Amino acid sequence: MSKKKKPSILVINDDGVTALGIKVLIEEMQKLGDVTVVAPEGPQSGTGHAITIGKPLRIDRIQIYDGVVIYKCSGTPVDCVKLAVNKVFKGHKPDICVSGINHGLNNSINVLYSGTMSAAVEGAIEGIPSIGFSYDDFDADADFSKCRPYVRGITEQVLANGLPKGTLLNVNFPNVPRIKGIKICRQADAKWAEEFEERTDPYHRSYYWLTGVFKLRDRGEDTDVWALQNGYASIVPVQFDMTAHHAIPELNAWSFEIKEGLNDKG
Amino acid sequence: MSKKKKPSILVINDDGVTALGIKVLIEEMQKLGDVTVVAPEGPQSGTGHAITIGKPLRIDRIQIYDGVVIYKCSGTPVDCVKLAVNKVFKGHKPDICVSGINHGLNNSINVLYSGTMSAAVEGAIEGIPSIGFSYDDFDADADFSKCRPYVRGITEQVLANGLPKGTLLNVNFPNVPRIKGIKICRQADAKWAEEFEERTDPYHRSYYWLTGVFKLRDRGEDTDVWALQNGYASIVPVQFDMTAHHAIPELNAWSFEIKEGLNDKG
Repeated sequence: MSKKKKPSILVINDDGVTALGIKVLIEEMQKLGDVTVVAPEGPQSGTGHAITIGKPLRIDRIQIYDGVVIYKCSGTPVDCVKLAVNKVFKGHKPDICVSGINHGLNNSINVLYSGTMSAAVEGAIEGIPSIGFSYDDFDADADFSKCRPYVRGITEQVLANGLPKGTLLNVNFPNVPRIKGIKICRQADAKWAEEFEERTDPYHRSYYWLTGVFKLRDRGEDTDVWALQNGYASIVPVQFDMTAHHAIPELNAWSFEIKEGLNDKG
Repeated sequence: MSKKKKPSILVINDDGVTALGIKVLIEEMQKLGDVTVVAPEGPQSGTGHAITIGKPLRIDRIQIYDGVVIYKCSGTPVDCVKLAVNKVFKGHKPDICVSGINHGLNNSINVLYSGTMSAAVEGAIEGIPSIGFSYDDFDADADFSKCRPYVRGITEQVLANGLPKGTLLNVNFPNVPRIKGIKICRQADAKWAEEFEERTDPYHRSYYWLTGVFKLRDRGEDTDVWALQNGYASIVPVQFDMTAHHAIPELNAWSFEIKEGLNDKG
């Protein structure tokens, strides 16, 4: 990419603009192109693909790091992508959208709950090659140094090759002394077994904290969970077409009996 | 289903427990089984697959309709499903989870943004046959009478047949004088073209309201958008495996160069 125009890079996250993970991502992206950041002003973990429709949004320029255009936004990660595309880039799309580095894994079913991944999904819906990065360490001062060369290398590949239409990448890094390499994976089948912690407030009313245990239901060795457990960085190509195409023939064989009833006007 | 035990039915929505759409759904489900409702206390449209992890959750029994167990919940639609499964049903799963009837369509890409659909997705992750219902009318006093026999008929089919593993149904009803029938569809490729409306607050600071125009990018006649535009109820089988399986071979052909740099420990 020697003498070409530097790529324009949109950086997003869900842990908020002051998180260490996005600082590391910004630093790595500055080595590859011109960086613009539009990130939530505070933590937005677990917001999935939420958008803000009942209240207005704020977006403000801040100057916390040199050489980077940074906006903080009052909304969700998906709001940030929408505002970036429509109000910051104003029609000339960025060359790539990178999200993260998330403090904590977004492998398997977490792709649905993760604001980091939903921001990357939204970037892909906008037609921008998009990648979400996550690292297996929830600490606010996590050591992302092992992730850095992978973040650069994977981003360079996407800048060089693009991505298949309608897809994005979900990249997760294991917390191991040395990452063994990269595995291209499918999303492991798993769920969270919730264990709501019940407490009583000072007014004697119950309330609950959502906690949970990750339950793997998948013994495959081609999954992101397997790759991470075995010391590899996992890359899952993700699509936003949620159609279960394989189920269409079966449903077409059903005979739906639609009988209008006496109370249907009630 | 003559003499068998009545099915237990979990009813959810995202417009809130007092919306007309969920009242209609409750009425139709009472004709088919024993109904338990766990729904948000207020509107949660556009919350997608968000969960509540930064603050506690409340869940309270209310008695607004006869013959139905109803809980209102302070959280998102997905929180409602998690609380229903873990705290209300306590392990003996409901036979089916139905979500809606949403005031407004959730066809095409809206499956990602919709709290109604995310609740159904969460039901499916829990292994419960799940259906989301939506109707093309945003009015608070929309006339759902045309939807009623379809809601019953489709639910009866799912109770009788189950659903393929890892799938759920996204059902949308057109706002037409007479629904022509049912089409099994794929999710149309579309996006929202956002047009943020900028306003100025009394303190001379800008803020934005998210608005948008639905942009269809798909001329197929096998899509939910086509079916609805032509007067049919659309049923899209949806899956929560977001892996773009077709893209795995292409990515496996890439050569990632991971070069550690001098500043990687920085």
